Parts: sequence; structure tokens; C-alpha cells
Amino acid sequence: MQIEQPYELVLFGGLGDLALRKLFPALYLLDLDKRLPQGRIIAVGRKTLKLNAVMTKIKQAIFSHVDERYQDDACWQRFSERLQYVCLDVQQADAYQALASELEETCPNRLFYLATASYLYADIVVSLHHNQLIQASSKVVLEKPIGHDLASAKEINKSVAEYFSEEQIYRIDHYLGKETVQNLMVLRFANSIFESQWNQKYIDHIQISISESLGVEKRAGFYEQVGAFRDMMQNHLLQLLCIVAMEPPAKMEPDAVRDEKVKVIKALRPIEGKDIQDKVIRGQYNQGLSEGKPVPSYRNEEGVDGQSQTETFVAMKVEIENWRWAGVPFYLRTGKRLAERACEIVVQFKEIPHSIFAMQHKKTMANKLIFRLQPDEGIRLQLCEKKIGSGMNVRPMILSLNPDNPSQDFIRLQGNDNDSKNKTVRVPEAYERLLFDALASNPTLFLRDDELMQAWDWVDPILAAWQESEDSPESYTAGTWGPAEATLLLARDGRLWNENN
Amino acid sequence: MQIEQPYELVLFGGLGDLALRKLFPALYLLDLDKRLPQGRIIAVGRKTLKLNAVMTKIKQAIFSHVDERYQDDACWQRFSERLQYVCLDVQQADAYQALASELEETCPNRLFYLATASYLYADIVVSLHHNQLIQASSKVVLEKPIGHDLASAKEINKSVAEYFSEEQIYRIDHYLGKETVQNLMVLRFANSIFESQWNQKYIDHIQISISESLGVEKRAGFYEQVGAFRDMMQNHLLQLLCIVAMEPPAKMEPDAVRDEKVKVIKALRPIEGKDIQDKVIRGQYNQGLSEGKPVPSYRNEEGVDGQSQTETFVAMKVEIENWRWAGVPFYLRTGKRLAERACEIVVQFKEIPHSIFAMQHKKTMANKLIFRLQPDEGIRLQLCEKKIGSGMNVRPMILSLNPDNPSQDFIRLQGNDNDSKNKTVRVPEAYERLLFDALASNPTLFLRDDELMQAWDWVDPILAAWQESEDSPESYTAGTWGPAEATLLLARDGRLWNENN
Repeated sequence: MQIEQPYELVLFGGLGDLALRKLFPALYLLDLDKRLPQGRIIAVGRKTLKLNAVMTKIKQAIFSHVDERYQDDACWQRFSERLQYVCLDVQQADAYQALASELEETCPNRLFYLATASYLYADIVVSLHHNQLIQASSKVVLEKPIGHDLASAKEINKSVAEYFSEEQIYRIDHYLGKETVQNLMVLRFANSIFESQWNQKYIDHIQISISESLGVEKRAGFYEQVGAFRDMMQNHLLQLLCIVAMEPPAKMEPDAVRDEKVKVIKALRPIEGKDIQDKVIRGQYNQGLSEGKPVPSYRNEEGVDGQSQTETFVAMKVEIENWRWAGVPFYLRTGKRLAERACEIVVQFKEIPHSIFAMQHKKTMANKLIFRLQPDEGIRLQLCEKKIGSGMNVRPMILSLNPDNPSQDFIRLQGNDNDSKNKTVRVPEAYERLLFDALASNPTLFLRDDELMQAWDWVDPILAAWQESEDSPESYTAGTWGPAEATLLLARDGRLWNENN
Repeated sequence: MQIEQPYELVLFGGLGDLALRKLFPALYLLDLDKRLPQGRIIAVGRKTLKLNAVMTKIKQAIFSHVDERYQDDACWQRFSERLQYVCLDVQQADAYQALASELEETCPNRLFYLATASYLYADIVVSLHHNQLIQASSKVVLEKPIGHDLASAKEINKSVAEYFSEEQIYRIDHYLGKETVQNLMVLRFANSIFESQWNQKYIDHIQISISESLGVEKRAGFYEQVGAFRDMMQNHLLQLLCIVAMEPPAKMEPDAVRDEKVKVIKALRPIEGKDIQDKVIRGQYNQGLSEGKPVPSYRNEEGVDGQSQTETFVAMKVEIENWRWAGVPFYLRTGKRLAERACEIVVQFKEIPHSIFAMQHKKTMANKLIFRLQPDEGIRLQLCEKKIGSGMNVRPMILSLNPDNPSQDFIRLQGNDNDSKNKTVRVPEAYERLLFDALASNPTLFLRDDELMQAWDWVDPILAAWQESEDSPESYTAGTWGPAEATLLLARDGRLWNENN
């Protein structure tokens, strides 16, 4: 897959938090790896700044976010020559002439990246259209969250769809760009020993957990409106669930993969009425200790309403009503100010039906496949083996497929594979992968409209019920694993969250 | 499991090759590990030697066979105090008085270990009986090969059974004492992900291979009579096949395990008549290069008949006629002067039915579980993973469960397990395990009479056909993987021997 040249990447929100922390570092690293051909990157921002000042800001951002090994002045020089800055207020249609004058008359590969709040998407695409900047080959990347419920998401989708066909729209969920998520697909679909057991006969349950140790930080204004469910659950966690649960697509092609993902969302058992209380736990952090330091409660964070009902934690039990997954619960969990920062997918196989060995903890020693996406990426397989020596004592052992910490065999294989021996391979950032794919017109890892709409459709009753409810989120102490009710959600089924790995 | 005290271990063939290379080092290491309680070891030999000379010989043997780290003079001192030497001609019944005078009147745990040629077993047990040395609690260990065909094995068994009940008889096959063979049982029966796939639905075929790089060395006299089939195939390879193929026993108890093993042998498809030529390849090495040095042909080895028809190589295709294994061939192979010394069991899973990734070698990239017993012990799992970076490229990777070369995770788990951190665990030798088990009266890893008889019964037609045949073994060049016919045996089925690992 190649990037068609020349390209023009127009970055709205070009000096925003996401652009500086993620997008520019990712583009720079693509350039460093010689994977970014000649082309232009136009940052669009609101602030009136000289190009020099913008450059300094971007360089600082890149160099403070990439590893020291990759801070290469020659590469920055090359990269900076692609950069341009356009100052405009995106809500003022006539301001777009400033952008138009920076772009070529025609460009075979023009990509608009909307890294702004989603309520601005409609204004932006209308103005792009009125200024004749959208061509048949142009593409647009939409950052999440797209809308705040089904109705608003539909509206945004409709506005964008007036000027971009579905093939031109790239809805990003950066979790899908993570190396380990893609390796999950390879592990499933290239290994008969895994895919043949990937169903209710062999799997006891699956956990997907994204925990943050940070609090709301400086995003209170945004977060108060959004909450953990819209910020994380409705997009990242559901997307990961789709990748884990989907049927094998017949081809590794965009629509083949996305057809399978949307089938999963359509098969989710609705959570409505009384079920919401039983299966969805929302929490809000109280004061506590985070990494040893006292931290305030959510309601005492700067910018947060003292009576805020916004949830900073969600745990839920999800069921998929199809042949593969009937009876296999998926437990999803996310929250701020939890005990540690981690993102893990745990595939818990059933325990062995009968043990002929002395095993003290047959249940906890059942096989597990753990996909870790954060803070480090890697895959681990928990097996049981014989304890060396006399007797037949069994102990759990963990095999690691962690690219960050390669085993000797791993290195050896890379050697065989014509990579140079002992060279550590850099695991690309999610945004590197996704920016490259968008520039190369490969939408496999981006959401199609029906996926997004089905997801909103499924979560809408939960959000609506919370809106109407007079109950508050359960309180939990900052620095813990969330409210007791979340532990109870699994304990009722005789299970535990995977917390000690 | 404990060794009852005091014990008396009487070692016939006490200064023979096996005793010096394997048995004394094993006993010494048990002592070093504080696993050998107080008791006595009486070596019985033919040579008239002073105790001093015997001690020197044994110490030299031990210290030249155990790793430098374990050469401990204090331990040797303690060990040597258990040792006694009795000189007698085992075929002279009245000579046994010399032995009798060394033994206690009664001993709760007396073990006779017959490390002599099996044609002497009858004489020895008769003499032991006539000298009242066999008590109800006494046990006897019989070394392989027991007999040279069904009839002779029956005869030996019958002689021994006159004075020892079946519970008192321990038929040894040291391959069953190997750590990895026991770990194979744990891997199968303590991991749902393996045992649930351990059948014809998921496994393509299984290979068991014991290759030696050495030639016949100084054992020509013995080897000329025996050949590779009786020396290796009829015992070691069939035993490994039983462990790999057996149904899960209901308990880890001697008869539960041996019942399952014997069921496997009974289910072997008979190889008779024309099948013998098709499914069993015998070879004999010709001159060639072994580890870079020119070596003579088998017929030119010292002590070998210039027209010898003895096979130094056997490969065969074995089928098991039951629900679990129907249609899954087991390819067995053993030989001298092959390309390398190795013993491996390869469980080859079926290739994935359909690949959605670009995989050049779908067949060779199928999952494999490799149990390596020699020269190092360890288990490896071949998986496919995503090659780091853009695209969805798949490459094979090998996960190693090798106790000799522990991964960091492996060490960490030992730490959790109350073993001291970073301490390397010594993998016990097969004979250590088996001597301990025999002294502790645990016959699980020893052959029961019916196992042995069934094995002879199954191989008898092959040996008889060769006896009558005028064909010679296929010639193969020393230092290669055997005759071309052995490659063809698998190639006819579209398969290859696992030779590059």
C-alpha cells in the first residue's frame, strides 16, 4: 500500500492538543522511516502566529513526544519543509480563501483531518465545499467523539455526507491503529490453535479494560459534557470488542472487515430498562491517593460542577447473541483515577474439566491470552507447566510475545526474516499507522457509518436512562479499581477482574 | 512420595557402562539434592577388585559425568559411605552368599537393579530366590531390552514372575524419566488449549525422532544382534508414542496411566505382509562425514560382520485405530550416524483452512508444538504473529518453554513460586527420577508386563519378515538424515521431516 503523490494533508485543529501530542509526532516518525513521500502538510489554526513561531511550537512538541533516539535534526529539517500554517476561524466561510490559496488547483490525494470538536464538522465541510476545496478524490478524517448521542451523530454524519461520499470518510478510532490490536487479528486468523477455540465451547469470558491513573486534568469543560461512557466505552471499548468477537472476514479488505464488525454490534443484546442497573455500573471518583499523592474528588477538580453527575468510571457486562458467543460474557471497564494506567484484553479460556495433578488453584490457572495495549504493547499466554523436579507439580507460566522486550527466539526469528540481527524494531504509534492508511486510502481500520450508528443506537437507551435517573454515580476512592459494584458485577458470576498482571 | 528407610539398592552390572555413566551419577545427584535418605548401595560386579579401586572408579565416573558445579567432595564423602562392592559371577548360584552376607536379614526396601544383559535375568532371580534374598517387599528393576522378540520376552517375564509379583517388577525405559516427557503430560492435561485440540480434528500428524550422530562405537557385539529396531524403536519410540497418544487417565496413578498406554499399543494398526515394505524403512550407514570427520561404513566398524544385514536406521509410519487418532499418521524415526544428535516429538497442527493475510508458506507456518528431549530439554510452540510495522504481514515466531534457557518471565514465575529468585533450577536426569521412583515404590513411569508384551506382539511380524527377507537395509551416507526412502515415506503424504529446528 502506497501513498499517492503529491498529497496535501490539511489539519484542522492544527495547533490543538491532539495535533501536537500525537499527529505531528506520528507524521514526523513516518518521515523518519522514509515512509512519507513528498507532499505538503497544512496546519489550520485559530491563532495568528508567524510561521516561525508555529514551527518552533511543532518542533518542540515532536521532540518532547518522540524518544531521544529519534530526535534527528536532519529529519526535522526535511519534515519542516513540508509544513505550512494557515490561520482561520473555521466558522467563517469566507476565511477559507486563505486556505484555498495554499492548496493546488487539483490534488490527487487531498486529506482533510478534522481534529476539532465534532460540532464544528458541519461548518467546516460546508465551507470547504463553498470554496471548491473538496474534489472527487479528497478524503476527510473525523476524530471521535462524533456526536453525543444517536441523534447528534446522525446529524453530523448527514452534514458530512452531503459533500463526501462514504468512501471518502475516514472515522478514526486510534485504538484500532495499535500494533497489538492488529496482531490480535493475526493471532486469531493465522493460528489454527487459537481460532479453533475462539468460541463459547472453549472461552469462559472476555475482559476489556482501559484504566487511567490520571484524573480529568485540564479537560473538565469537555469531560463534564461527555463522561467516561461517551469518551471511552461507546467508541474504544466497543471497537476492541468488535475486533475480538468478529467472525473471520473472508478477505483482509475494508468492507469485509467492517461487515464483520458491524455484525457484532448488531448482535449485542440490548441493555434497556431494569437491565441497565444490573449490567452497567457508573462511578465517580472521590478524593484519594494517586501514585502516592493525595488527589481531590472529581467534583472538586477545577472546572467541574460541585454537584456533577458525570461518570468518570463505567463497567458493564455485555452479551453477544450469536452462535459463537452465546453464554460468554464480555466485561468492559474504563475509568479515570484508577489504580494504574493499563489497557488489556483478557481472553479467559475455560478451566480444564478435570485435573489429574495436584493443582491448588485450578480456576486461576486456566489458560489466558492477554493482549496489552497500554502502557506497553504485548501479548502474553498463560499456560501450566510441570514444576521441575520430582513429583508432578503444576505451576502457571507466562509466555511473552512482547515486541518491546523480545526473547532470544524472537530476535532470532527477526534475523531469519532478513531484518538485521539484534536490531530492535520500533513499534509504530497508532496514529502513524492510521495517518499512513488514510493517506494511502486504506479505510480498513476506520469506522464505517453503519458501525458508528449501530454503536450509538445500542448505547442510546443507557445514556437516556441515566439522563432521566435521579441516582448518582457510585462513589469510588481515587487510586482504587473503581466502585465495589464493579467488583460485584463479576463476583455475581463467580469471576474476578484481571488486576494483578 | 518418600523413600522408605532403610533401603538396600543392589546393583547388578555394578561396574558396567550404564552404572558408571548413568546410575551412579544419578544416585550421587539425588544425594547432593538431599533426596537420598540413609541406606546402602551394593554394586555387584564380576571383577575381583579392592573396595578402594572400585571407589576410585566410581568417583571418577561420577565426576566426569556431572557438571563441575556439582562436583562436591563433601557430598562424595557422604555418598561413598553408602557404597559397598561385591564380586560374584551371577551365573554361579553359590556365589550369592557373598552378597547375602552384605545384606540385612530383613530390609523393608530392598531393590535389585539388573543392569546386565537380559539373558542373565532368569539366572539372577533364581539365585536370589535360592539364597532367600527376595522378600515380599523387595523390588526388581529390569533394564531394556527385555528379550529380542515376543517369545524370548515372554520367557524372561515368566522366569522373573516366578519370584516377583508384577507389583514388584519395575521395567525401566529411561525416556519416560525425562523431564520433558513428564512436562508433555502436564502440558496436555493441565492446559485446556492443548488437550482440547489433541485429536484428529486439529492435528495433521506427529513425528517422533531419535537421531544419533555417533556410530556403533564399542557396542558392535551387542548391536549386531539387536539393531536399531529392537534397540530404540520397540521401546523408546513406542513409549513416547504412547505418552503422546494416550487418552487422559482419570488419575495420575500407576495403573490408570499404564492402562491408557497399553490401550494405545493395542490400537496400533498391525503392520504385516506387504505393508511392512511400504511403511517401514530400514537403513544401514555407509561411509561418510560425521561432524566434519570421515567415518567408516557400519560394515567396516570393528566387530561388525562385513556382510551384516543389521539395520542402523528405521523409519516408519504408524497409525492408531481409534476415534482420537484415525487419519493422523505418527512418523517414527531413529538411527545412528545421522546429521545430528536430537530427540524430538513434533505435534504438527493442521494448517489454517483459509488465510486472509499474504502468507507465502501457509503449510510450513502451521502451528507446531515441539518437545525436545535431547541434547537439551525444552518445549517450543510455533505461532504466527504480525510482523511489526505497516501492512498485515505474517511471520512465524517460536515461543520457548525451555528450562535450560529460561526467559525472564519464566524466572519471575519461579520467584513467585517461592523458589529463590534468579536461581537456575537443575533439570534432573531421567535416571535420577526413575531411581528415586523405584526406591519410593512408584511404578507410574515403568512398564507393566502387558505393555511390554503388546509392544513385542506388534513388532514381531516386522522382525520376522526381515529375518526371512533377502533384501538388505537401504544404504545411507553417514552424517545425513538416512536413506532417501525415509524422506519418501513422508513425501508420499505431502509432508517433510522436521529437520531444520
